[in-house]
Amino acid sequence: MAKTQPRTMPGVMELLPRQQVAFQRMLATIQSTYERFGFVPVETPAIELSSVLLTKTGGETERQVYFVQSAGSRAQGYEPDLALRFDLTVPLARYVAQHEHELAFPFRRYQIQRVYRGESAQKGRYREFYKCDIDVIGKDKLDPAIDGEIPVVIGHVFRALDVGDFTISISNRKLLLGLLESLGVSDAERRALVLREVDKLDKRGRDAVRESLTRELAATETAPARPALLDAAAADRVLAFVETPGSPAEVIRALEAMGIAHETFAQGVAELRAVVETVDALGLPAKHYRLNLAIARGLDYYTGTVYETFLDAHPGIGSVCSGGRYDDLAGHYTNSKLPGVGISIGATRLFYQLLEAGLVKEPLSSVTVLVAEFDAAQRADNLALASNLRDGGINTEVHLQGAGLKKQFAYANKAGIPFVAIQGPDEKARGVVQLKDLAAGTQQELAPEALVATLREWLARG
Amino acid sequence: MAKTQPRTMPGVMELLPRQQVAFQRMLATIQSTYERFGFVPVETPAIELSSVLLTKTGGETERQVYFVQSAGSRAQGYEPDLALRFDLTVPLARYVAQHEHELAFPFRRYQIQRVYRGESAQKGRYREFYKCDIDVIGKDKLDPAIDGEIPVVIGHVFRALDVGDFTISISNRKLLLGLLESLGVSDAERRALVLREVDKLDKRGRDAVRESLTRELAATETAPARPALLDAAAADRVLAFVETPGSPAEVIRALEAMGIAHETFAQGVAELRAVVETVDALGLPAKHYRLNLAIARGLDYYTGTVYETFLDAHPGIGSVCSGGRYDDLAGHYTNSKLPGVGISIGATRLFYQLLEAGLVKEPLSSVTVLVAEFDAAQRADNLALASNLRDGGINTEVHLQGAGLKKQFAYANKAGIPFVAIQGPDEKARGVVQLKDLAAGTQQELAPEALVATLREWLARG
Repeated sequence: MAKTQPRTMPGVMELLPRQQVAFQRMLATIQSTYERFGFVPVETPAIELSSVLLTKTGGETERQVYFVQSAGSRAQGYEPDLALRFDLTVPLARYVAQHEHELAFPFRRYQIQRVYRGESAQKGRYREFYKCDIDVIGKDKLDPAIDGEIPVVIGHVFRALDVGDFTISISNRKLLLGLLESLGVSDAERRALVLREVDKLDKRGRDAVRESLTRELAATETAPARPALLDAAAADRVLAFVETPGSPAEVIRALEAMGIAHETFAQGVAELRAVVETVDALGLPAKHYRLNLAIARGLDYYTGTVYETFLDAHPGIGSVCSGGRYDDLAGHYTNSKLPGVGISIGATRLFYQLLEAGLVKEPLSSVTVLVAEFDAAQRADNLALASNLRDGGINTEVHLQGAGLKKQFAYANKAGIPFVAIQGPDEKARGVVQLKDLAAGTQQELAPEALVATLREWLARG
Repeated sequence: MAKTQPRTMPGVMELLPRQQVAFQRMLATIQSTYERFGFVPVETPAIELSSVLLTKTGGETERQVYFVQSAGSRAQGYEPDLALRFDLTVPLARYVAQHEHELAFPFRRYQIQRVYRGESAQKGRYREFYKCDIDVIGKDKLDPAIDGEIPVVIGHVFRALDVGDFTISISNRKLLLGLLESLGVSDAERRALVLREVDKLDKRGRDAVRESLTRELAATETAPARPALLDAAAADRVLAFVETPGSPAEVIRALEAMGIAHETFAQGVAELRAVVETVDALGLPAKHYRLNLAIARGLDYYTGTVYETFLDAHPGIGSVCSGGRYDDLAGHYTNSKLPGVGISIGATRLFYQLLEAGLVKEPLSSVTVLVAEFDAAQRADNLALASNLRDGGINTEVHLQGAGLKKQFAYANKAGIPFVAIQGPDEKARGVVQLKDLAAGTQQELAPEALVATLREWLARG
């Protein structure tokens, strides 16, 4: 029979078991940190009704949606009415609106699931990837102090992931929006465009951003001419503003001293002050965060606090965890006013980047010890030894088919199993077990009772 | 704006957070038991190339496949070339064939992921559900002793899930096939049909099965007439055979004493003996398993050992964990001979059934304690208290927006948070914290240092 070539579709991450162990450890670290900070789990179906998932206006992400249709529905000539989620935010909005009366507010949920996007195939673009989201959803109101918990959660996650130094940048969109209002930029769309340009400051540099803020655009085939977003003086004012230097406390004091009496601006300052107070009260080390008034996030979805996170030694990776505050989560589904704040870690891309940067150590198997088979006559003894190890909490594999010891050692090496235990007839007679440490190349003779303790100690040392 | 009704597609299980906590605990129990027995993790993409996923012959399950197509591909008028996995076995075959040279054999993998089937919408049928699979894949050979590990893993899983007594039924298809050969039933298709009827013995009863074994079928519009599968004497012989009573050791002795010299039968007896030896050496309590020669599994995919698992108090639920031995995992993709053995737990259906049967206790939140806000002036103290609790490993939420204590207690009750900690100005002055146990309705005054220890002790008691 002709064989089908076994392969995955492009744009997915499929790992060998040892890397999968490391990836699962990363997800487990994120999950337990989220739980430690009082977030509760939610999972939603990967498939949603497309009428529920997709809005009429359809942004960039919606254009990448994957439609789903059963073979039966196709055979009957129907159009697909199902689609795969492309993020966890729209399913969260649907979930909260659907279960509103059964949930307790503020609703603090985490969700760690895969999402799907019909991306063009290129390096670093994933068609299937894990998102690890937290959001706090309020009913009618949500205190800005809560926005200050989010960077502390991020800080604990990245410290636990042990990926070196990192910096969380925090700002509040109301500051720039208020400044622009005070400068007489009354058009909301123009203000949003300014924020989008300023957000590129770290990536493109001051000159390029100034240039795009002050440039008039000539008419093209598809777009009319556009006047400059800002005049030169206003552009300089904005750039000087977003470069306000200093510690968080100094930046807050500088903002207060600016004497900008505009309401939106004043709200932004008050909210940012509340965030800094929460962050400091929760004890996030100062080196892990800064106020960076240039960040605004591309999405106009965000209305207040915004966050981005960079690995200090790997700025090229870009933000590894972003998010912010939004006014209304689920206006598409309900009249209830549901303000929220949240962040997302794209775990698949992050893991791949940490691998590339050499920040994931060569992982071992999830199996700690292989009980080798010296001789098939020893099988019952080996199985009893394995039961003993498993009862002691040690992940144990037993070799159960004839093969020389050398071959079994080679197997353990390839699989990344760190220890091999052997009890041949001689050991059995003397009531001992040989324990071989494959990485160290050492071997010790132990009483069976001491085996569990020795391996537990090794596991505890990490 | 007109609102879209927030709802999921039919045939999916979406849980409220407290139930999700219980469900995740169930998955974590299954996962840690699988790891304890030396299985390593694999995850595969939910979407596969349909040319890889679907065979030409296409069984029942393949007819339920969901096709996937990006919005862009649809717009260009292409046919879909992607599909969602409908089980974890075909992706495993693809994975092993694709990564064969990087894997160590025997390859013991577990996989806990969702699968998708375009089922008709009816109670108990899921379009998206979790499967929790283990398989051991050999290269060229796989010792039958390994088949004996599988029921022990199942036994540990169901004991850890604490769902009451259960019985794992074990048989080997070669026994019945060999018996039928020895009775002169030479046609392989007819033997497979006999096994399929006999497999229904527990569900339909002896008389109904005997009737369908010995009945001639008249021609219908869609099928020709068919002679009886067995004559009356052969049917009685088969029924007497599959009802061989006794302990596993007694059944093995009875099989050996039958004097059926046929090769296939002899192989079946030898394999079953090896399975029982492993099971007993690993110490699975006798009450948890029995040899039931009637079970054969519907699928002809299985070639040797087969397993089914029933909850003793809930036989109506049907088998909650089934599987068996197969000769060749990945013949569709590779010339390598890859025999395997495995089982699958349908976790979504199982969880739903345990809920219905009252076997899932009303779960608490994953949050252990809410630090209540007596007064916004206490906020920094409350955040410091929360940090202290979190550092001590306690999942902690802090109330961070104005609300009376009564409302905060109501919130904790609704969310299933078992404890509320309060440090008002009076407590703060005296250096203590009030800890309220919501279930017990009791309250105690503790030094902040004692709080972590008290809550840890409570968590350790389960």
